[in-house]
Amino acid sequence: MSSTSLSFGSRDEHRAWLASQAALPRGFRTGTTRFEFRPFELPSKVAKMTLTLIALDTPTPDFAAMFTKNAFPGAPVKIGRKRLAEPALGAIVINNKISNVCAPGGEAVAERLCAEVASQLQLSPGAVLPCSTGIIGWRLPVESMITAVPASVAALAGRSILPAAEGIVTTDLYPKIRRAAVGDGSIVGIAKGAGMIEPNLATMLVYVLTDLAVPREQLRAMLTPACDSTFNRMSIDSDTSTSDTVVLMSSGKVPCPDLGAFERALHQVCADLTEDIVRNGEGVRHVLRVRVSGAPTEALARALGKSVVNAPLFKCAVAGNDPNVGRLVQAVGKYVGAHAPEVDLSRTLMQLGGITIVENGEFFLEPSKEAELVAHLRGAELYASKPDAAGLFSPPVDYPPHERCVEVDINLQQGSASSTVLGADLTHEYVSENADYRS
Amino acid sequence: MSSTSLSFGSRDEHRAWLASQAALPRGFRTGTTRFEFRPFELPSKVAKMTLTLIALDTPTPDFAAMFTKNAFPGAPVKIGRKRLAEPALGAIVINNKISNVCAPGGEAVAERLCAEVASQLQLSPGAVLPCSTGIIGWRLPVESMITAVPASVAALAGRSILPAAEGIVTTDLYPKIRRAAVGDGSIVGIAKGAGMIEPNLATMLVYVLTDLAVPREQLRAMLTPACDSTFNRMSIDSDTSTSDTVVLMSSGKVPCPDLGAFERALHQVCADLTEDIVRNGEGVRHVLRVRVSGAPTEALARALGKSVVNAPLFKCAVAGNDPNVGRLVQAVGKYVGAHAPEVDLSRTLMQLGGITIVENGEFFLEPSKEAELVAHLRGAELYASKPDAAGLFSPPVDYPPHERCVEVDINLQQGSASSTVLGADLTHEYVSENADYRS
Repeated sequence: MSSTSLSFGSRDEHRAWLASQAALPRGFRTGTTRFEFRPFELPSKVAKMTLTLIALDTPTPDFAAMFTKNAFPGAPVKIGRKRLAEPALGAIVINNKISNVCAPGGEAVAERLCAEVASQLQLSPGAVLPCSTGIIGWRLPVESMITAVPASVAALAGRSILPAAEGIVTTDLYPKIRRAAVGDGSIVGIAKGAGMIEPNLATMLVYVLTDLAVPREQLRAMLTPACDSTFNRMSIDSDTSTSDTVVLMSSGKVPCPDLGAFERALHQVCADLTEDIVRNGEGVRHVLRVRVSGAPTEALARALGKSVVNAPLFKCAVAGNDPNVGRLVQAVGKYVGAHAPEVDLSRTLMQLGGITIVENGEFFLEPSKEAELVAHLRGAELYASKPDAAGLFSPPVDYPPHERCVEVDINLQQGSASSTVLGADLTHEYVSENADYRS
Repeated sequence: MSSTSLSFGSRDEHRAWLASQAALPRGFRTGTTRFEFRPFELPSKVAKMTLTLIALDTPTPDFAAMFTKNAFPGAPVKIGRKRLAEPALGAIVINNKISNVCAPGGEAVAERLCAEVASQLQLSPGAVLPCSTGIIGWRLPVESMITAVPASVAALAGRSILPAAEGIVTTDLYPKIRRAAVGDGSIVGIAKGAGMIEPNLATMLVYVLTDLAVPREQLRAMLTPACDSTFNRMSIDSDTSTSDTVVLMSSGKVPCPDLGAFERALHQVCADLTEDIVRNGEGVRHVLRVRVSGAPTEALARALGKSVVNAPLFKCAVAGNDPNVGRLVQAVGKYVGAHAPEVDLSRTLMQLGGITIVENGEFFLEPSKEAELVAHLRGAELYASKPDAAGLFSPPVDYPPHERCVEVDINLQQGSASSTVLGADLTHEYVSENADYRS
């Protein structure tokens, strides 16, 4: 899906490239501040939180947003849905560390924070959108947050989106920024997301800013299909966050020369961010790109792709550079057997890295293929896995060394629909990250 | 679901208990043999296979079987479905290491093996049921297997089912045997299964033998609900094997005094084997037992339970004895948001180890609860996790130290239906096992 094929040899090289992408569209400023607090639920620990503001010079009526379909949405998501009816949006206030989901009094606390930001920026409270990400179930340290608002307001600057891209992350290894130009204007997006990621109609925290003047109704009409064909076609771990949010807003500073070009550029920024999110997923060592074609419907093609990228045994095999392609067949057969038993798999063609492994529903393996398949897997590996002295695993890089994927092609030869889904392997690094995330 | 609460201090203690359960029902014999071969797909390696026979003294018309719903079933599954129409079953021939799924000519090879076994046991080829488990995609070493048949026939003995329970395993840590008595007869079941386990209407390899005389039609009518309420309510890793098979057969040597008692005993043997399979799942350190009650339908209760036991982030938290209960809420909300958005979660009550964590849809956490929740998780841990010198993780025990579970209770307060689902944590041991399974 990505338009690019980048590679980086070091963190500095990657940061320099990010900086080159980071110029804010006209009419926006961002500011962040970091502070310590003691969580209500674990008062023996000192935790750190970053508060990030994205502010418009002038409130805009032209914004769109999509939110998680998880049936336990966070308080900020509930408030965000209401904000869609507001006449204008002036700022977004974002915190990491605690997601404010199902916490007692969560909505009231989020509204208090919005009111404080609004008061300092001379906005109405309804013009401030709150977003939170982090631990589910804990309460926001609202007093500490309100104390921190003036510092983040003071930090507001209109040059680079990089501090905001860094401010919103949790377990992400690196910030994610993508941009596209349309005429004299630009579309710039940032994303947070590393785990609990199989979005359902919206995703993680994504903010897409543009100075191109596109009216609210058109922004909203474009955001749904853009999310649907990008963020909604990935899964890092099949889990759907309670906080997923995508916001798109226009400062309207630059006339839009071509709405079609704007929509294509929006799609590209979303697609590029999608790949960034998967590549920087928790513990990800290989990105999987599964293209299902020849399907009777697009929905089936997508569901089959999801079944493959969510099959733990196939994911583990990929982690070990082990071309255990039987596990791929299992994942396809599992989905079809359970959900689409009418589909005939007898003509199925499967390829891994362009090498045919299944033809007409039968394996097509030879001893000589093993080495080629291993080479394809190794070529897509982002880094070698190695435990530290304590037996814990963590990625040795904090930048994306390359953009190669493990390429899986499944042609059912049963129709003309297709879909491409992104996913990741299942690694020791994922388990280390998540078996003791809070301590 | 289990009727027992066993614990074992050592492998020897566990084996002694297995031996006490292992007496074969009248009318059955089992035999195994182990041999080396070079796989067609990886001829540089020498692999080992065990061939196991389960034979009746006299072929029986009274048998039942259920098979995987995976849409890429193995050749033995395809043949097994045909065998259901045969007048009688006389023997089962089972191999581990290679599952004979989608392999070119797979059915012909399996039939050749059945014919060889039939010829040596004076049966018709249609009276022999083949079963294979192991790597998907590879070809069976049929010549080596046929050469090994006489040794397994010579090994046939009518005393203990333990050699067969040991012969059918792959990555299992220990054999699994459960029994129940009805009148003067018995029901004895064995199971193989450790990974690729979320059965769909049948499961792994399970053989249930009885000497109680129960006619074919009644055996078949009883097997479906027994599987449905036991094997079909567990998931180790959400993957559905291409080889899942459950066979139930009666030698008819003992009159059955009470069909109701037989059905209850059959259910109990299946339920006990289900818990054994989960507890011995690949890399499992904690067994999860999720009871969903107050649901509008049983199907929803079961699906919600499955969503919890298959949520990677919750599974990782459990592995780390980390009561990250937010991830539990995420898993419930993910399913309801995607599949049952009409369900009202605002009155939901959730407990972990009997401790209330969510009430009326809001978290009910206090600092003091953290230690109690951690204690519950630690109490259900089967062993401590520690990498070896090479950084690989494997379980330090090959017996089940206890039968305690992580107990999750979710009451939706929306109806009277309920379901209990078994699952497991997601551990370094699982990744180590599966990232390099074949080498």
